[in-house]
Amino acid sequence: MRGDAPDREEGLELRPKFNADGLATCVTIDAERGDVLMVAHMNEAALQATLASGVVHYWSRSRGALWRKGDTSGQTQRLIELRVDCDQDAFLAFVEVGGDGGACHTGRRSCFYRRVENDAAGTRLAFIGPTKTNR
Amino acid sequence: MRGDAPDREEGLELRPKFNADGLATCVTIDAERGDVLMVAHMNEAALQATLASGVVHYWSRSRGALWRKGDTSGQTQRLIELRVDCDQDAFLAFVEVGGDGGACHTGRRSCFYRRVENDAAGTRLAFIGPTKTNR
Repeated sequence: MRGDAPDREEGLELRPKFNADGLATCVTIDAERGDVLMVAHMNEAALQATLASGVVHYWSRSRGALWRKGDTSGQTQRLIELRVDCDQDAFLAFVEVGGDGGACHTGRRSCFYRRVENDAAGTRLAFIGPTKTNR
Repeated sequence: MRGDAPDREEGLELRPKFNADGLATCVTIDAERGDVLMVAHMNEAALQATLASGVVHYWSRSRGALWRKGDTSGQTQRLIELRVDCDQDAFLAFVEVGGDGGACHTGRRSCFYRRVENDAAGTRLAFIGPTKTNR
């Protein structure tokens, strides 16, 4: 355990714990429907830009750049509420999605469109139908 | 984009993409209430143990060991459904929690017990009261 764990876990100061790459995990949730849309990363700049603008920004690892979600897709994410976890290395962003309401670059609403099936025959994925609520 | 992206994103084969440390993110959700309990990591061994046993295993970065959640706390997590995201580097685990129903080592039900407040006076955290539903 880190010596500063009590402060970080029980304090009222935002002291995000970024990893060796300067990143924290952000789980993004549709504030209205309550389901998870995507998982991405924030660095300090993305976090500050999100808080300052009220629009969710991430750090794109593939592009190595600050990424205001929706700039190209129109799928902006207006921040409704941001939560942080016990050790401050993960965030939950409750958002209102603009554009067509989607979040995934594949065109789907949520990135989590497949479930893992595992039985005696092996392990495989199955698509979660678009008519099924995403739990 | 990686050359194998179409297969990974549209295929039915589980091909998890672990990071340089051999880890993928797992977001764990209370299957009954639908809210996020915690964010942790799985390596290949943790993923396989989870699928084989139906009880969620993680990789503990702090201990450097496979971690069957609940072994010491009693807060076991029975896997109800596992989903994977588009590029297969993040999972959603819908679980039924044993023991007292909690998941956080601080004694709280969810690790996300504080929200970030940001206004002209600055940025601070606020506890989400235990009587309030965790959205």
